[in-house]
Amino acid sequence: MSVDKPASAKLKARQPRGFVDRGPADVAATERMLAVIRESFSRYGFDPVETPFVEYTDALGKFLPDQDRPNEGVFSFQDDDEQWLSLRYDLTAPLARYVAENYDALPKPYRSYRAGYVFRNEKPGPGRFRQFMQFDADIVGAGSVAADAEICMLAADTMEALGIQRGDYVVKVNNRKVLDGVMEAIGLGGEENTGRRLTVLRAIDKLDKFGPEGVRLLLGEGRKDESGDFTKGAGLDGVQADYVMSVVEHQPGIWTTGGELGRVSDWNKQLQRNAVLDEGFAELDALNAAVVAAGYGPDRIRIDPSVVRGLEYYTGPVYEVELTFPVTNEDGQVVRFGSVAGGGRYDGLVGRFRAKPVPATGFSIGVSRLYTALKAVKSPIVDARNELPLVVVTAMDNKSPEFMPGYQAFVSTLRQAKGDNGKPLCRADLYLGSSGFNAQMKYADRRGAVCAIIQGSSERDAGTVVIKDLILGAELAAASRDVKDSAEHKAKQAEAQFSVPVEGLVEGVKTVLARHS
Amino acid sequence: MSVDKPASAKLKARQPRGFVDRGPADVAATERMLAVIRESFSRYGFDPVETPFVEYTDALGKFLPDQDRPNEGVFSFQDDDEQWLSLRYDLTAPLARYVAENYDALPKPYRSYRAGYVFRNEKPGPGRFRQFMQFDADIVGAGSVAADAEICMLAADTMEALGIQRGDYVVKVNNRKVLDGVMEAIGLGGEENTGRRLTVLRAIDKLDKFGPEGVRLLLGEGRKDESGDFTKGAGLDGVQADYVMSVVEHQPGIWTTGGELGRVSDWNKQLQRNAVLDEGFAELDALNAAVVAAGYGPDRIRIDPSVVRGLEYYTGPVYEVELTFPVTNEDGQVVRFGSVAGGGRYDGLVGRFRAKPVPATGFSIGVSRLYTALKAVKSPIVDARNELPLVVVTAMDNKSPEFMPGYQAFVSTLRQAKGDNGKPLCRADLYLGSSGFNAQMKYADRRGAVCAIIQGSSERDAGTVVIKDLILGAELAAASRDVKDSAEHKAKQAEAQFSVPVEGLVEGVKTVLARHS
Repeated sequence: MSVDKPASAKLKARQPRGFVDRGPADVAATERMLAVIRESFSRYGFDPVETPFVEYTDALGKFLPDQDRPNEGVFSFQDDDEQWLSLRYDLTAPLARYVAENYDALPKPYRSYRAGYVFRNEKPGPGRFRQFMQFDADIVGAGSVAADAEICMLAADTMEALGIQRGDYVVKVNNRKVLDGVMEAIGLGGEENTGRRLTVLRAIDKLDKFGPEGVRLLLGEGRKDESGDFTKGAGLDGVQADYVMSVVEHQPGIWTTGGELGRVSDWNKQLQRNAVLDEGFAELDALNAAVVAAGYGPDRIRIDPSVVRGLEYYTGPVYEVELTFPVTNEDGQVVRFGSVAGGGRYDGLVGRFRAKPVPATGFSIGVSRLYTALKAVKSPIVDARNELPLVVVTAMDNKSPEFMPGYQAFVSTLRQAKGDNGKPLCRADLYLGSSGFNAQMKYADRRGAVCAIIQGSSERDAGTVVIKDLILGAELAAASRDVKDSAEHKAKQAEAQFSVPVEGLVEGVKTVLARHS
Repeated sequence: MSVDKPASAKLKARQPRGFVDRGPADVAATERMLAVIRESFSRYGFDPVETPFVEYTDALGKFLPDQDRPNEGVFSFQDDDEQWLSLRYDLTAPLARYVAENYDALPKPYRSYRAGYVFRNEKPGPGRFRQFMQFDADIVGAGSVAADAEICMLAADTMEALGIQRGDYVVKVNNRKVLDGVMEAIGLGGEENTGRRLTVLRAIDKLDKFGPEGVRLLLGEGRKDESGDFTKGAGLDGVQADYVMSVVEHQPGIWTTGGELGRVSDWNKQLQRNAVLDEGFAELDALNAAVVAAGYGPDRIRIDPSVVRGLEYYTGPVYEVELTFPVTNEDGQVVRFGSVAGGGRYDGLVGRFRAKPVPATGFSIGVSRLYTALKAVKSPIVDARNELPLVVVTAMDNKSPEFMPGYQAFVSTLRQAKGDNGKPLCRADLYLGSSGFNAQMKYADRRGAVCAIIQGSSERDAGTVVIKDLILGAELAAASRDVKDSAEHKAKQAEAQFSVPVEGLVEGVKTVLARHS
């Protein structure tokens, strides 16, 4: 006998903040989601590729938004040779490294997809983790807006493949050049205005949340929220703020006027134009024409000049997949579900490694966020019930090791059994603990078993097993006293627990499973 | 126009040693392997669970074998609050933390499986990486040998589900108590002999590689290999070495004598017994009885006292899944493929966090190693051909953006098309680069497309598209001059490239795909 240490001397089982475990329902549902996304991306001719979790820190670069911590949001550590390594913070920077490293061997334009966890060394909060999964698709080596259009259509098709109805999502498209052009027009161009530009972009990004009035305050002196907290604004004057609002608030009535395809550039006449702005508008026009020609109307893909996207490496079109159905947030307010994916064109990223620039565009799905959304719309993809039924073989005589091989043989038989459709009949679990029979039946319930297999000494002598239908059994147990006295009830009890010869085990289990399929 | 930096000023695209990228064939094959393993584990009633990649360093503990580096083989870094975090080095230590943290909420015995990458901060070498994937199954809360027997049967069934024939694998079983008993019998018990015990275990572990003579040398003074390198031995005397060899070299003739189930304990009579040894033998007996009763003979699960397993946390039965078919190694020698999975009982690991000990057993598949093995036996699981065929839509007029939407419409149509079986017809890719038509056809070849869709101005005016069968086309191109002049050849050329009205695109593609399915 070993003497146990007192509990107080033991290690505490705990997790670092921002890291979480995931149970069976989550893992199985995520697996099914990933399979649907893979199929959708594959249909578009994208091939899978996988890069490792660890990269040289300098290869990843510094592109994370809102850096207010010294280590810039990345987990880093030194290798034996003193070089700095980091855990990837997204899947785009490693892709750029991969493409640059294998440039000549890849077909170009190079379409690829990849899924995996990424890591942010940030302060965790509700729904904000330090490890989370992304699923990305990218086209590298295609500079035309047609590539961006493909990504937007792929995003739309993928949402529908996942069970999100048309009308419950929209792919919103903007262009960094439009925002850059606005900045130039209001006199915020140049290196020296980087900080103020960021404040303006952050304000624009809040249009959905705070509405036009709120954004106006954030563009001007600042905004006080309901709790009294004050957020300092960008300090724009009225004319500058008008200019910004006239662009970002423009809700394209163009899409709804008489069914005629409006051209995005039609609505910028009131603005003081500049070349960057014009280029941005022209690219939005072209993207719009491409998706409309392929049959994707503004109910699926829509130009929206308020889309910002935080990452610094975007250079042209940017996209955001927003789910528009209402959900109730933690404060009890009904809000739109919001963004589950986003991306854009990043023509400079691969070029960091190469003498010539390489155009690239792509998008990234936030897998956990999407999972929450699919649960909210009750998508069949995340329905846990499409699993094989479970049968638990109990071990009534588990105090006598010589009887265990007999129980073992039952589970082996069940695991090899096929249903009438030729597929595996069930999952089968043998109770391997040391507890008594009542605890074993509780175990079967807790595991969600459809039926339990029982053999004590009298059954063993008779060469039989008892099959207990746990679902029917629970229904009968819940019946009233009057019902329990009825002949019908007694007949059902005989159905809920019955004995078969050992050779009839599979047939008996089939009978029970057929009742509940 | 931006002026590009000279190439020399650019970052070099490179990966840290021991980390690798994986291309489409690898990723797709691994995906299919994982699906088969998941189904096999699920059939046994195991539920998925997932823990994060990062844990507190102290929660992981120090159990890696052969530590000869100061950081003990683990990637570690400090959190903001100065606590040490590590990347997981296996999936067992995090499971122990998970079970301890969620003990009351879990059904017990708790059967679970999980797959994922683990990280070792070790010197990389051929086939030895710093990031690799494991797939584990464990039963926590079951102390009986029946649980170990389940794991061994699960391992055997999983190998067959993956396409490894019976006879090409064997699950070899030993027990740490047998090895501990041997150490005690030869006077190497106690703390003070930890180092020598390790040397003896390493010697035993080399039985497959060096044979009995080699192991005897390593148990005694040492062994010089062919290159002249000398490995110092454990320094055992002849009687001690005889004792060790009599146990580990015992190839269980017991299994083959007249078809009668021999008992493992029958062959230890010649040994000077001790309680630990007896307990080990008795457990091997019981495990053997359980698997034989369930129909698993020694061709699938076999007792082998030379199995060591490196990890320090094992306390009872240990298992190793060995693939027995021959392969040629880097030195041109024909050898057995070797181990692809292993595990054992680790009754102390969960107990590190709890007042009372919690028995546990499980095994781990080395996924990359297994993938190599499946390729060697040509398992259909890793056959890359079971993908949907790819169609490439070329963009002959890609210099004129106004024609791109038309090409876009072709790919959209193809992506939505269903085959006669109701499943998606094909994957479809639109050429989005800026190169000319010849480069586009090369792109289609390089991507492995079955056919290419072509539309120039004359086809556009006529409302048609050209469908080019790339497989048939390549065959015809390879024909001899004589054949090329034949009428038959010309008829085939008409089949290999033909024109259809735009509305007939899907039917035309179906005709081509049907030729090559």
